[in-house]
Amino acid sequence: MLPGLMMDYPLTLTHFLERSRQFFPRREVVSRLPDGSLHRYSYRDYHPRTAQLARALTRLGVKPGDRVASLGWNHYRHLEMYFAVPCIGAVLHTLNLRLHPSELSYIAKHAGDKVAIVDRSLLPLFEAFRKEVPSIEHVIVVPDDGPSPPGYTDYEAFIASEETTFAWPSLDERAGALMCYTSGTTGAPKGVLYSHRSTALHTMMLCMVDTKGLSETDTVLPVVPMFHANGWGMVHAAVAVGAKLVFPGPDLSPGAIVELIARERVTFAAAVPTIWLGVLALLDEHPKKWDLSSLRMIAVGGAAAPAAMIRGYAERHGIHVRHTWGMSETNPLATVSRIKVGLELTSEQELELRAKQGFAVPFVDQRHVDDTGKVLPWDGKQMGELEVRGPFVVSSYFSGAPGTKGEPEGADKFTQDGWFKTGDVVTIDEEGYIQITDRSKDVIKSGGEWISTQALENALMSHPAVLEAAVFAAQHEKWGERPLAAVVWKPGKSATNAELSAHLAPLFAKWWLPDDYLVLDQIPRTSTGKFKKLELRAKFGAHLLSK
Amino acid sequence: MLPGLMMDYPLTLTHFLERSRQFFPRREVVSRLPDGSLHRYSYRDYHPRTAQLARALTRLGVKPGDRVASLGWNHYRHLEMYFAVPCIGAVLHTLNLRLHPSELSYIAKHAGDKVAIVDRSLLPLFEAFRKEVPSIEHVIVVPDDGPSPPGYTDYEAFIASEETTFAWPSLDERAGALMCYTSGTTGAPKGVLYSHRSTALHTMMLCMVDTKGLSETDTVLPVVPMFHANGWGMVHAAVAVGAKLVFPGPDLSPGAIVELIARERVTFAAAVPTIWLGVLALLDEHPKKWDLSSLRMIAVGGAAAPAAMIRGYAERHGIHVRHTWGMSETNPLATVSRIKVGLELTSEQELELRAKQGFAVPFVDQRHVDDTGKVLPWDGKQMGELEVRGPFVVSSYFSGAPGTKGEPEGADKFTQDGWFKTGDVVTIDEEGYIQITDRSKDVIKSGGEWISTQALENALMSHPAVLEAAVFAAQHEKWGERPLAAVVWKPGKSATNAELSAHLAPLFAKWWLPDDYLVLDQIPRTSTGKFKKLELRAKFGAHLLSK
Repeated sequence: MLPGLMMDYPLTLTHFLERSRQFFPRREVVSRLPDGSLHRYSYRDYHPRTAQLARALTRLGVKPGDRVASLGWNHYRHLEMYFAVPCIGAVLHTLNLRLHPSELSYIAKHAGDKVAIVDRSLLPLFEAFRKEVPSIEHVIVVPDDGPSPPGYTDYEAFIASEETTFAWPSLDERAGALMCYTSGTTGAPKGVLYSHRSTALHTMMLCMVDTKGLSETDTVLPVVPMFHANGWGMVHAAVAVGAKLVFPGPDLSPGAIVELIARERVTFAAAVPTIWLGVLALLDEHPKKWDLSSLRMIAVGGAAAPAAMIRGYAERHGIHVRHTWGMSETNPLATVSRIKVGLELTSEQELELRAKQGFAVPFVDQRHVDDTGKVLPWDGKQMGELEVRGPFVVSSYFSGAPGTKGEPEGADKFTQDGWFKTGDVVTIDEEGYIQITDRSKDVIKSGGEWISTQALENALMSHPAVLEAAVFAAQHEKWGERPLAAVVWKPGKSATNAELSAHLAPLFAKWWLPDDYLVLDQIPRTSTGKFKKLELRAKFGAHLLSK
Repeated sequence: MLPGLMMDYPLTLTHFLERSRQFFPRREVVSRLPDGSLHRYSYRDYHPRTAQLARALTRLGVKPGDRVASLGWNHYRHLEMYFAVPCIGAVLHTLNLRLHPSELSYIAKHAGDKVAIVDRSLLPLFEAFRKEVPSIEHVIVVPDDGPSPPGYTDYEAFIASEETTFAWPSLDERAGALMCYTSGTTGAPKGVLYSHRSTALHTMMLCMVDTKGLSETDTVLPVVPMFHANGWGMVHAAVAVGAKLVFPGPDLSPGAIVELIARERVTFAAAVPTIWLGVLALLDEHPKKWDLSSLRMIAVGGAAAPAAMIRGYAERHGIHVRHTWGMSETNPLATVSRIKVGLELTSEQELELRAKQGFAVPFVDQRHVDDTGKVLPWDGKQMGELEVRGPFVVSSYFSGAPGTKGEPEGADKFTQDGWFKTGDVVTIDEEGYIQITDRSKDVIKSGGEWISTQALENALMSHPAVLEAAVFAAQHEKWGERPLAAVVWKPGKSATNAELSAHLAPLFAKWWLPDDYLVLDQIPRTSTGKFKKLELRAKFGAHLLSK
């Protein structure tokens, strides 16, 4: 090898922080507080406070590599932590406030969190597990919904006396910067430790035209929580390019979101399908009540978005939905569903394509393999497990702080030749568009053949009476497993089993159709909005046996 | 440091090549040949041929790190070299066909080129220096304007029998990929050896919305030669995102360029000011003759673009000009002049700002320093030398192949604390916008004060009679140096010295005004379009002494 002669300049978040300070002082950061009021400041205010936080943490004894946990909603002080912690060389570990205290204690203990910065509104949750986590030496309270209680260090008091500039240290681009635990629908939660390099490259990628195209002219609303896979990277990207940021705080109701978009002239917003389904229902109910013309795109990810939703936004409200796929393990954006140039499609075909997961973003490689690990052709038909690799894909899980179980978990998720096994069962068509047909653990094995639950769910959710549908494996004497569907009706609507089967019949082989339909008030979901199919299996798995 | 746990996936051009093959087979590559005809193929054709070239070079004995020289115009076969050579681990060294044979022999010998791939139309130039370069073991002729002469290996025959797929090797991201020599207006030409990492990051950067925003929907016309600082990176970016490419071949006349833009519906084109000045004159002469509505932007760089040109395109032809700055040493794009959000500007102020060099692109840091190396404040007033650093900035020059002068040249271009000294004298305003006032070697030192030649030139070129103007230092008995201007009249126009001075007077301190004006038929330029001020100084430097 003849080495190139270019500077060994590290790819770190520090560069973006400094860039934002130097070039974009005027852009605003708007946060909705728990009382509904809006806090506003500009990056001109943000940077001195972030420097103060960095100084205060350093004074407290936070060292490179130490984990600083946050337990908070999306707001400006969380944004301060987002850069101050990694840029002093420490690791920001965002705790998921939707988890049970027993899960949080496991995660915080496993991560070895040393400092915790907690929203006052979440102190009851924090105190429910804090005692279980002896590694936590310091607690700082963000006074989001009122003054910090006596006995706690208040965030504002913590930073107030510090100087407002900071000589950020030079960091190795491979140093850990951020940490998230997977939601863990199976097994124990696993820690993903993102490096500066990983997040910096992901940030650049999000600003490329053909992914999300984030730019200074954007006003970005991360509805997705900052503890959910780094807020999908939008927060870092917004700071990097100097975009205006709008944080929703705790109120993620459809009305609150729509109102924020209209009032702050949001151009780009991202959330899971559940949120956007709620917003769509509200817009359908009150068409033209809000002026949402500022939106250039809304992004949906975290779970498959029904095609009917994408169509509903486009046809009834003129809003473009961009479907994406990713995981905590991919920093998280790994694919974007975008219509390529030169595909000759009817509008119906285009909609179908946009409802797929799309194809890999720059610097991610994709393939799918069968049970034996054989790489499958891109024919749009053969189902296999999706594997990805790239500089923002996890290479192993965090093995745990000293004193916790020392063995790296999830070693079975990585192939010999360096790919990450996503656990998603997909087809890939000739153009490279991925369609997730199932989670590998959810796919139904009926008489030796695979049945994709997600395809059935999407088709059921296009029925006019169905709000949500989950299809899962029920035990069957003859076939081993057979599909069973759980449906939730739209308000005031319903349908018979025969009507639902008739709706599905033209779309699937006969043996794919669910053997029965259960009507539920709601479908149990994980904290990140995914159907809890294990719970459905546990509760209703014997349903067909008793029939 | 706690290392992050993300994949150690290298940033290489191979990723973009494979990405283009997998996802963008339909997009076209159009090349104008020397006879004026257009050659067309798609990436579906490009990739097998590129694999064939890689195999043929490997068979020939090209090893990782070997330099493969190209001497060619912009066309599809050059595009094949652009990826095949770096992706087998070798280094593509693009030779500048506008140089003198003596310069080319120095450069090729210094680089130690092993293979040369030469356009048939450039064989006379090549043969004029080949004998001086003993390292060249193989010559391959691209039959661009007719069949290869007997005794030469023909490019098509060279690749024809090879298989059309290639298992690209895994490369270190720090490996050398490309090499260019600086045009060397002072001293010997110096080699810049770009790494895969450097070019890969530069490619991503060009596709970010706030720089050039290259995307799949673009049709890219690199008027700038592929031997001029990697064609400004546009070619790599176009392949990476699957944009259509249009190569102009040897005919860079205004008529040929405009005709290509109109015919191929070009959306993005880039060239030096000379080219765009010529195109503007043509458009002014024949307004509305061509439909150029496909253009979303033309980029200008390589030298400062006159504000009058930027205004002319905008006001008379509705074409947006984006001004950029860079050097061979910066891969090359380092700054972009883009109007930031929230600046409250009159249209006149906006034009002025767009004519500046702009501010650093992501991952480039900028500062300017005085004679003693002290970092200057961003006040828009104090002049200092611009320094940059980043992952696509050179760290040292190529020290030369074995047998050439072994000492690295240009060590004085790098500061102790890791910045590259650009040799440009600039001001930087509060917003970070850079304005080049001069090359450090061109600045005029009159009685201890600095006079910026470029500011005077820009002002002179806004005079209705002036086509081009160069201002340079002439020796002066009392003041040491005084400004002298060389002007070229627009066809059929002229002005008196007094009229020119009156035009400048409101804009500058009185002692800045040129002592005299010389009328020339043309101003001597380097092969990359820059004024040859050393030549002007040599020829006319004593002019004032004799007056």
